[in-house]
Amino acid sequence: MALVLDAAAQDLLFRQARTAGTFTDEPVSDETVKAVYDLVKYAPTAFNQSPLRVVLVRSEEGRRRLVQHMADGNKAKTEAAPLTAVLAADLEFHEELPRLFPHFPQAKDVFFSEAQAREKSSTFNGAIQVGYFIVGIRAAGLAAGPMTGFDADALNKEFFGDGKHKVLAVVNIGKPGPDAFPRSPRLEYDEVVTTV
Amino acid sequence: MALVLDAAAQDLLFRQARTAGTFTDEPVSDETVKAVYDLVKYAPTAFNQSPLRVVLVRSEEGRRRLVQHMADGNKAKTEAAPLTAVLAADLEFHEELPRLFPHFPQAKDVFFSEAQAREKSSTFNGAIQVGYFIVGIRAAGLAAGPMTGFDADALNKEFFGDGKHKVLAVVNIGKPGPDAFPRSPRLEYDEVVTTV
Repeated sequence: MALVLDAAAQDLLFRQARTAGTFTDEPVSDETVKAVYDLVKYAPTAFNQSPLRVVLVRSEEGRRRLVQHMADGNKAKTEAAPLTAVLAADLEFHEELPRLFPHFPQAKDVFFSEAQAREKSSTFNGAIQVGYFIVGIRAAGLAAGPMTGFDADALNKEFFGDGKHKVLAVVNIGKPGPDAFPRSPRLEYDEVVTTV
Repeated sequence: MALVLDAAAQDLLFRQARTAGTFTDEPVSDETVKAVYDLVKYAPTAFNQSPLRVVLVRSEEGRRRLVQHMADGNKAKTEAAPLTAVLAADLEFHEELPRLFPHFPQAKDVFFSEAQAREKSSTFNGAIQVGYFIVGIRAAGLAAGPMTGFDADALNKEFFGDGKHKVLAVVNIGKPGPDAFPRSPRLEYDEVVTTV
């Protein structure tokens, strides 16, 4: 009642959407991912830094390169997903800031001249964008299977190799197959929120 | 076309929603925030760890305690917002894991016995939940004004004081007032996504 978002959208994005560990064979097109990106790109990041970068893994060769670096428990489902997105932060996002944050072009130098500040900020804002991206996958009527169990250094080298990116998450994408797990319980409002 | 989410919901959550720097005086009730939380709590985190904790700042005294630790550029808008949420990660989220991740209760000890691992994982998954929370505020027909410019150590002490929480972001919440900035440009799909 306190929400403006219609009930069908609430269900699609949050209430009925589920993390998927299995998928049907139905392919996921680049056009669909473009529609997802062109929706979630509008959600905010600090300084509009938009550090998220994505490698879509669809080919047999790409999948082989990816799966070898996944944790054992994530290999089989990543092999079987129709599409997998490697989500990374661009550690040199600041190069785009004069274009992305035109009302304060000095932000590039004032806040992000040091690599450590860039890594911290792009990891944090990239993670926020991982959240948006998962919501966007659901907006396309698909299920996401986000994973953080992988050899991060190996994935960085495998898919970026320039030392300027940091893989944050790997997300299987597709129409959901049967899911082994019931939904786990969530914390109640009063366990999470206090008011002062 | 490639999206299932209806156009009105796309507009509400992403296309027309804007980061707000000014707000009307209309109050935001705890009931509204509860509706937001009870929607976005379903979005996924690693091991269902759900590390996000929230302090809602509404009282004059609470606002005074908060604003003193905000960066100068964030003080005035934080003073004027009808409600402000301090979003933090619970660094001891692992204590809840046996309840939240019942199909692998050992996760608490196997993966999160060390404080450093907990801080890394809860910061990352907490940031993902910051993304969900911003989407949820928009689902309530409200505008979010997320900020990361504050004295983090001072805020941790001011609102948690137990050394077991880490403030991630501070978000002003309300009906949007006039916004000084035009929307900044976003990166194009081809600048962000590649396929292998």
